[in-house]
Amino acid sequence: MKKRITLAMAALAAVGTLATTPAAAQFAKTEDAITYRQSAFRLMANHMGRLAAMARGNVPFDAEQAQRSARLLETLSHLPWEGFVAGSGDAPAKVKGDPWKNADDFKALQDRLMGETAKLPDAATSLDSLRRQVGATGAGCKACHDKYRII
Amino acid sequence: MKKRITLAMAALAAVGTLATTPAAAQFAKTEDAITYRQSAFRLMANHMGRLAAMARGNVPFDAEQAQRSARLLETLSHLPWEGFVAGSGDAPAKVKGDPWKNADDFKALQDRLMGETAKLPDAATSLDSLRRQVGATGAGCKACHDKYRII
Repeated sequence: MKKRITLAMAALAAVGTLATTPAAAQFAKTEDAITYRQSAFRLMANHMGRLAAMARGNVPFDAEQAQRSARLLETLSHLPWEGFVAGSGDAPAKVKGDPWKNADDFKALQDRLMGETAKLPDAATSLDSLRRQVGATGAGCKACHDKYRII
Repeated sequence: MKKRITLAMAALAAVGTLATTPAAAQFAKTEDAITYRQSAFRLMANHMGRLAAMARGNVPFDAEQAQRSARLLETLSHLPWEGFVAGSGDAPAKVKGDPWKNADDFKALQDRLMGETAKLPDAATSLDSLRRQVGATGAGCKACHDKYRII
């Protein structure tokens, strides 16, 4: 078992995310927090793109694939916010409008996005409902981007 | 509804991942495929780091947090492979050993990792079982990194 743990540590050390103190349990460095939230957003953008392509008729509606993307989006939509640690707003992070000073507003926009995303799995059962809910979810993305993201 | 879709499209266009043809449904560009798999790996590395920190005793064992990371890892472990599209192995991608030429071996390593990761949620119920399974999962990461990832 000792050996197994050592191997695991070696693998993890290689990607540089191993936390070393309770206070830094999630992110050892500010850069790690930025990478974490950006990674979540990028996966979300990809799967929103897949759903939008069906909604637009650019690819045929596929209920199974739509359901998969919808469920992933619901899971992923909870992740990025933890990565907005204090002091992580400077370039190259694409943050504007100081979400930390506007914490209540930022939180309301997070809740809106998570709420709309949570409706995607049910909506993904038909093209009509998917189209509506992709629109509502995308509007939730955009509301926050407009205020807090440098395009 | 038209307006909603338009807003969603604007949000998605901003992140540049909107697919335009069936053949490119998942990834419009090779770079998008690389970004996708790297994003999944980065989230996985972060949550493996959280579990490893508990396994090592660097942070106290927290069954709820361990369960959350374990479930996320199980979900995320299915994602990166799709991003290994043909022709996506050149720098700055950190690929070595040509996983495309060694597709069976690469697939076996993916299956091993997904199999070990799927055991994490049950293992996360106690520190002892978590420690063992973090070791086995980390060894699964390392087995593939050793062959196919430039450290």
